[in-house]
Amino acid sequence: MVNKKKICQEIRRRIIDVVSKNGGHLASNLGVVELTLVLHEIFNGKNDRIIWDVGHQCYAHKILTGRSEKLKDIRKENGISGFTNRFESEYDVFTAGHSSTSISSAFGLAQARKINSEPGYTIAIIGDGALTGGLAYEGLNNSGRFDKNFIVVLNDNEMSISKNVGSISNYLSKIRTRNLYIKFKNIVEKGLDSTPLIGNKLKKLLIKSKSAVKKFVYENTIFEEMGFLYYGPVDGHDLKELNTAFNIAKNINQPVFVHVVTTKGKGYKFAEKNPKNFHGIGSFEITTGNSKKTNENFSDVFGEELVRIAEKNPKICAITAAMKSGTGLNKFFDKFKDRFFDVGIAEEHAVTFASGLSVGGLIPVFAVNSSFLQRTYDQLIHDVSIQELKIILAIDRSGLIGNDGETHQGLFDISFLNTIPNVTIFCPSFFDELKYILNYSINSIENKIFAIRYPKGSELYRYDGYEYNKSNFDTHGDINNTEILLITYGRTFSFACEARKILLEKNIKICILKLNVVKPIDLKILEVIFNFKKIFFFEESLKSGGVAEKLGCILLENNYVGEYKIVAIDDRYVKHSSMKSQIEKYCLSTSGMVNKISEFENI
Amino acid sequence: MVNKKKICQEIRRRIIDVVSKNGGHLASNLGVVELTLVLHEIFNGKNDRIIWDVGHQCYAHKILTGRSEKLKDIRKENGISGFTNRFESEYDVFTAGHSSTSISSAFGLAQARKINSEPGYTIAIIGDGALTGGLAYEGLNNSGRFDKNFIVVLNDNEMSISKNVGSISNYLSKIRTRNLYIKFKNIVEKGLDSTPLIGNKLKKLLIKSKSAVKKFVYENTIFEEMGFLYYGPVDGHDLKELNTAFNIAKNINQPVFVHVVTTKGKGYKFAEKNPKNFHGIGSFEITTGNSKKTNENFSDVFGEELVRIAEKNPKICAITAAMKSGTGLNKFFDKFKDRFFDVGIAEEHAVTFASGLSVGGLIPVFAVNSSFLQRTYDQLIHDVSIQELKIILAIDRSGLIGNDGETHQGLFDISFLNTIPNVTIFCPSFFDELKYILNYSINSIENKIFAIRYPKGSELYRYDGYEYNKSNFDTHGDINNTEILLITYGRTFSFACEARKILLEKNIKICILKLNVVKPIDLKILEVIFNFKKIFFFEESLKSGGVAEKLGCILLENNYVGEYKIVAIDDRYVKHSSMKSQIEKYCLSTSGMVNKISEFENI
Repeated sequence: MVNKKKICQEIRRRIIDVVSKNGGHLASNLGVVELTLVLHEIFNGKNDRIIWDVGHQCYAHKILTGRSEKLKDIRKENGISGFTNRFESEYDVFTAGHSSTSISSAFGLAQARKINSEPGYTIAIIGDGALTGGLAYEGLNNSGRFDKNFIVVLNDNEMSISKNVGSISNYLSKIRTRNLYIKFKNIVEKGLDSTPLIGNKLKKLLIKSKSAVKKFVYENTIFEEMGFLYYGPVDGHDLKELNTAFNIAKNINQPVFVHVVTTKGKGYKFAEKNPKNFHGIGSFEITTGNSKKTNENFSDVFGEELVRIAEKNPKICAITAAMKSGTGLNKFFDKFKDRFFDVGIAEEHAVTFASGLSVGGLIPVFAVNSSFLQRTYDQLIHDVSIQELKIILAIDRSGLIGNDGETHQGLFDISFLNTIPNVTIFCPSFFDELKYILNYSINSIENKIFAIRYPKGSELYRYDGYEYNKSNFDTHGDINNTEILLITYGRTFSFACEARKILLEKNIKICILKLNVVKPIDLKILEVIFNFKKIFFFEESLKSGGVAEKLGCILLENNYVGEYKIVAIDDRYVKHSSMKSQIEKYCLSTSGMVNKISEFENI
Repeated sequence: MVNKKKICQEIRRRIIDVVSKNGGHLASNLGVVELTLVLHEIFNGKNDRIIWDVGHQCYAHKILTGRSEKLKDIRKENGISGFTNRFESEYDVFTAGHSSTSISSAFGLAQARKINSEPGYTIAIIGDGALTGGLAYEGLNNSGRFDKNFIVVLNDNEMSISKNVGSISNYLSKIRTRNLYIKFKNIVEKGLDSTPLIGNKLKKLLIKSKSAVKKFVYENTIFEEMGFLYYGPVDGHDLKELNTAFNIAKNINQPVFVHVVTTKGKGYKFAEKNPKNFHGIGSFEITTGNSKKTNENFSDVFGEELVRIAEKNPKICAITAAMKSGTGLNKFFDKFKDRFFDVGIAEEHAVTFASGLSVGGLIPVFAVNSSFLQRTYDQLIHDVSIQELKIILAIDRSGLIGNDGETHQGLFDISFLNTIPNVTIFCPSFFDELKYILNYSINSIENKIFAIRYPKGSELYRYDGYEYNKSNFDTHGDINNTEILLITYGRTFSFACEARKILLEKNIKICILKLNVVKPIDLKILEVIFNFKKIFFFEESLKSGGVAEKLGCILLENNYVGEYKIVAIDDRYVKHSSMKSQIEKYCLSTSGMVNKISEFENI
């Protein structure tokens, strides 16, 4: 085993090295090194399939499946993805990024292979955090009474991103701390005969241990009630124990649930001590664990302003789906524990729960990353909008988000919120705008969804003299004597301002229409627009269902005649690379705007 | 108790009478009469709140909360809703219609009242069918360790719409049928005999250890592990037992989970015998239980065609989320049990599971009502579209659906699918078109989502000589010498054809552009459209994000100049009334089309 321990050490070193440079998910990857090694040893058949939930813990898996060299470019443009990606390797069975899908997708695959009479094992590895998502439960409920060769591995590190919450989490600590490493009942009944090597050892252990017998007599785990054979808890850093566990699991004639206990950040002291700071992280210094200091970002500004408001307004509640730090709610949690709710990775519940708070007269503020809000489409319709309830969505990481790549882009929010009645969408460009809008939404007497959309990172350049006018839109430039109108919203307004200066130097005069509210579209903007014969709409969002498309139709309905050009993300996914490079690529940067407009003028 | 029994009888009589005339949910309502009566007796404080999951079982509740008279107009235009509706009565705490939301919303309300220091009980009643949805689990996981005064009632009738499925369902039968003493005996006997090695030790231990025996007998339920006090099973038709149960629940100092066993259809022999036929039902004859014969509908045609295809193609799998009959899959189930999957009320799982089947080389067909597909927005993006997998969505009850009302309208599907890359949306108008498209989609080698959208009920009038051209679009009328173009798709094409005839009699000549594929929009239609100066787009779907809006923007981008009028459902919910009346109201009927166009011509 000495050799394998060395391999694990080596893998850890590589992961720490790469993440310290490229950023990425550190703590979760360090936690599953032994688990990954053993899984790949034991399930190495042509037909065995290993499926990682979320996929953010797959670095060791990538190293062990021929991508060791490529790891140095992970999360970079043209490099490999920071998540599993089925276009990258046959060993990445599914592309992932969102939580709690692995059991359902693995079960579908296992069913297909049964129907096709193909042999082999299908293994889903899911964290205890992901187990707080309802989809994981739906997966367990459907797969628990399936055939053999289906294995669910619970990677239990007592955390999702922050400390885990909820009954299931409490329950896991209960069974984790049981003084019983192997649960015998079903194994004795069903499994031992088929595992002669281990059988004897087990039997001896079983006969010796009175407490084990006792335990076995009176308690099924939830997972057994769901139809699985439960095996665990297993020390996830003990190669021998892991080996035994999976060898047994391989030979059981029913679905097996293997409970593996791991330590997030294992092997890197700073990450072990402070795993949540090393969940998703930018580059850092290995010897000190210190990250590069980043500028104040929208999440912080939101979180601080919400605390200020909540100090005076006892009706404010804050909700997060396992992203307290990420969404800037740490201070709110510290100050107002009774009004703070971390619901686990359960966005659907977050919204429906918010509808209950709202009926109860409170003002719930759900802070959530744009891409995870996608999960709540029906809840927003059915539990909030139809009922004309007031909730506030603080939509973080909207627009292009950089290195996490296609599953995490915040590009759908405007398009799907645009389809829902009783929704107002605000797109602040700067911190002061976010603060104003948050206050405005909270104080409004309208019963609707107030969606406040802001990007990852910090505010951008604020051109001289710009002041927020606190209304639905604003114009910059000469409305009457300019031919070209540039429409935009959110952070790209900063690029538009720069583009305007540069274009002026080229003798191209443009005016900017900055939208502060993008839904509903304030029809007063038509008075501005009808002054122009050429319109460019730069939108850091999907074209399909976006603001520009909607406005285009309104213009036609109102008999507008002129050139209308949309620059947006059109019906595609945006792969990982830096945020800057993504903004450039889709022509939403200063130079993109300048080029698009000058090209057109030169035709 | 005699008196109360009579009240229950009277309530049942009213429900049977009204549903036999108006249609509605019969079996589920008959099952909860005693439960409703007792709940309203025991929780009658000003601050007590009773929350019904789905809300389709609320007829007795409506009778007991001042709406007895109004029941006769339930589900009719201007009558009361067939579900709970918070705008209808203060006793309908939430508007409902979709499944599995009650625990989360009730918990939100309970939390709000705790924060507001308001007294009173909050009670969520959820069916065992709804418990198969992940949102219910997220609700339990979050609420189980809350305070007292929070009660979850499981209305366990062993069914959702069809017979229930999954591990939780099996588990419920297990605890439902346990007679504690007998169970104890059985387990000792069965368990010990099959493990001879340890049998004796165990027996001794059991005899010695009173606590073990006790534990054994009172084994923890899953609900206790989730933090609730479990009480049950309770006979849901025994007023006395129910009384005792809820009086106890009222006085427990923690959240309580009361397991009530009811019989679906109780008190009406035809419904008891065949509850799934009396779940959601049209009008019927009370003495025989016979429904009016309805015409062949799209669901049947879909189901039969899928069977025909699956006979030759072993890769076809069918998936339903607890709506085997409703989506026309009965015959498929009868013939191909191994390739049929009823996943419970778990639409998210259905889609992610389908992605697994697809990776495994099969062709999954998920048949689902439009409004429930809303739940899978993120799964369609993250688990299918990003991964470029092929699945087929058979989207039933699209468009306006009549008496079930606003929560069940199929009006969002096109708009949200329009935002997702790698999706093709077909809108067949007639049965033969549905059949052709289903075959086409299954045989296509493209890896994408094939969404086939068809309405509730039967195909409409097929005007003389119309033949399906099997391409993306078709025109009817003279392209070159006509001023007005009417664009439409799906069933409203029939109305358009009639409108064309009527308009011709008024000397208004129109041409019809029938879209068969609405996403992606085939740009060849521009060649047709540019022949016209006046365009009317009639769309039985949302305007926002719909096809007409998208096309309007494309036209402007292509410098189209002319009148463009959209008639669609604009940013609102459509209340219950007959499908016919809804179609009329939103001007999507023949007369609506005629009026809209002639009005415009007369200006």
